[in-house]
Amino acid sequence: MPVNLNPPSAAELLPVAGIKLGITEANIKKPNRKDLLLIQIAGQSTVAGVFTQNRFCAAPVIVAREHLAAGKGIRALVVNTGNANAGTGEPGMNNARATCAAAANLLGCAPEQVLPFSTGVIMEPLPLEKIVAGLPQAVKNLDEKNWFDASQAIMTTDIVAKAVSRQIKLGGVTVTVTGMAKGSGMIHPNMATMLGYIATDAAVSQPMLQQMVSQASDASFNCITVDGDTSTNDALMLIATGKSGAAAIAQADSDAYKLLQAAVTDVATILAQAIVRDGEGATKFITVKVEGGKNAAECKQIAYAVARSPLVKTAFFASDPNLGRILAAIGYAGVADLDVEKIKLYLDDVLVAEQGGRAASYREEDGQRIMQQSDIGIRVVLGRGNAAATVWTCDFSYDYVKINASYRS
Amino acid sequence: MPVNLNPPSAAELLPVAGIKLGITEANIKKPNRKDLLLIQIAGQSTVAGVFTQNRFCAAPVIVAREHLAAGKGIRALVVNTGNANAGTGEPGMNNARATCAAAANLLGCAPEQVLPFSTGVIMEPLPLEKIVAGLPQAVKNLDEKNWFDASQAIMTTDIVAKAVSRQIKLGGVTVTVTGMAKGSGMIHPNMATMLGYIATDAAVSQPMLQQMVSQASDASFNCITVDGDTSTNDALMLIATGKSGAAAIAQADSDAYKLLQAAVTDVATILAQAIVRDGEGATKFITVKVEGGKNAAECKQIAYAVARSPLVKTAFFASDPNLGRILAAIGYAGVADLDVEKIKLYLDDVLVAEQGGRAASYREEDGQRIMQQSDIGIRVVLGRGNAAATVWTCDFSYDYVKINASYRS
Repeated sequence: MPVNLNPPSAAELLPVAGIKLGITEANIKKPNRKDLLLIQIAGQSTVAGVFTQNRFCAAPVIVAREHLAAGKGIRALVVNTGNANAGTGEPGMNNARATCAAAANLLGCAPEQVLPFSTGVIMEPLPLEKIVAGLPQAVKNLDEKNWFDASQAIMTTDIVAKAVSRQIKLGGVTVTVTGMAKGSGMIHPNMATMLGYIATDAAVSQPMLQQMVSQASDASFNCITVDGDTSTNDALMLIATGKSGAAAIAQADSDAYKLLQAAVTDVATILAQAIVRDGEGATKFITVKVEGGKNAAECKQIAYAVARSPLVKTAFFASDPNLGRILAAIGYAGVADLDVEKIKLYLDDVLVAEQGGRAASYREEDGQRIMQQSDIGIRVVLGRGNAAATVWTCDFSYDYVKINASYRS
Repeated sequence: MPVNLNPPSAAELLPVAGIKLGITEANIKKPNRKDLLLIQIAGQSTVAGVFTQNRFCAAPVIVAREHLAAGKGIRALVVNTGNANAGTGEPGMNNARATCAAAANLLGCAPEQVLPFSTGVIMEPLPLEKIVAGLPQAVKNLDEKNWFDASQAIMTTDIVAKAVSRQIKLGGVTVTVTGMAKGSGMIHPNMATMLGYIATDAAVSQPMLQQMVSQASDASFNCITVDGDTSTNDALMLIATGKSGAAAIAQADSDAYKLLQAAVTDVATILAQAIVRDGEGATKFITVKVEGGKNAAECKQIAYAVARSPLVKTAFFASDPNLGRILAAIGYAGVADLDVEKIKLYLDDVLVAEQGGRAASYREEDGQRIMQQSDIGIRVVLGRGNAAATVWTCDFSYDYVKINASYRS
């Protein structure tokens, strides 16, 4: 079950002027399930995104990159679940393009103004005819108030829908940021094996929007792991409609940029953590913070070694303070000149290890007590500098195996 | 249960002249269990080894390296299970040295002529007094014929003991190579989270023996993974007693070196594969071969990405040909300029994917048939060169989680 994660209420998800969402049941993999989402974007909006770095990236990722690069302005996103359209070769590319053409035809824009997104099983042909048949119904129920339904329509193995809104004031004008994401397994940067859509009614120039989504992604979706598997289909899109009336943002050093960046990063972080809290089979949410490093890269490298270790993750599942496994993971993280004598390991506030071994003050019952919590902090102090990095992960349970052994059935 | 792996019979394990093994129950972690092994080595033998590259390497690993470097000749190895003496700081170092001193005292040699080895739980104090109390009994039953009992005494989560013998002729003289290993979880190079001991009655100079053990290890124990966790305690030791009467080997280009190297590598490979076949919770043995690469390093990198992917491994557990997960793992392996259009993926002899997608000839029932086997080959042809690499792994089952969630109880 998701760890300390409640679904959003429809009421708390604020519409973003200039964004309409239409949902339908297209029967892509299973019947009676919302599985097709159309997001219509007002003219003059800017759109930016970051995508998976998997070399076997999906056809829709390739097409979305092309259409963004064409620079004609993006007027719609089409998202389907149930099929990833990845590992599908040239037919997959044709299906992704045909999806865009079908949506463009209905909305009266050019195919290059539509971005396609798919998530689900890899290496199965995309049922294009079902998507084309479903799109008119999605167009019919386009509405600014549909964020909640939309966040449900993009779920795959997710148990809980993930969406959140924030409002800030820019020059006295109220600006809204609303985002949603899906993801539960095959979660590891870069990107974080998920789809994310964040929209704001602020006005942001294209280069500033691209910078904003990259920064937000690095501080959120690129700091999580569930199973160490980097997806073929990841994408995080940031849309700025400009409908709030706030002055356009075109400088990264402006106060407005910083305020909006903070709000977007906040939304992205909540969504990224929600993905881990809803990680496949998760029973614990674990924050791994590594500090005192020479640079952020080595801190992140060690944090990820701990966060993805199956031995560490099964110990947390069992609430067993077998914490030597954390030391082992630190030791094999690949930082060659690490001096283990200087390392301190904490579980929440409890000092567990120092000077290469168990701390004299450490008592098993203290470790046991913290291991039984559902939210747990691991803190590693390297004692060789001032850099730090944080990674969020979950434990590894029977249910992870069960979910992934039966995913296609 | 172990995958197509039978325990050795006591009869098939050939004694190695100059090597005596003594076993006892020292009650280190649990009562009524062989958990302490003493290996006595005849004078004039050479001994070489390779060790874990984990920065949090165990105290016995540090002491064993020191004693080997001292160059006084090694006369005994002491191996305990039930406690890894890792993450134990200065007290752990003192306990490892005291173990050597106690054995040396009983055998009439110097402490620097004894190497200590430990395997088991990390970050628990080593019960030195139990080891010291158990050693006299181990000395008492020292015998050349004890390889079978010894291979049982070093087991931890292993279900099946791992040992094998080979004989070759060197210049008309029969030479024996007998080896044993333990390992089942926390298996990932370098090294492969295990202890291995191989002895021969050939005569081999120290530098040649070191080269031989490194080559054998690279072709065997450094080609396996169970869970991606690199242990704190790995060691593979190669001992040459010279008691066979065959001429001493002192040149790497000699026929005798090549023959013995092949026999040692054969023994090491059988033991390494046995560790994977007995991998924690394993139900399938999977050979991942990547060929057609620019160099062996990139082939191994891709093979390991596939071999350690939890999504790939759970699909194999389920006998579900969800083979797109293999493409995803190839894609995120980190080879930046990979052209996915050129890649071919085979399951045994069945072509699964080419030209970026599912092969036209591929039928689900062919994949299904092979996924139900207990021994399965994954072959990835990169189409960009002539290099190749092979990695052995197992699937990921409920029992892996069960074993590691209850390891200390």
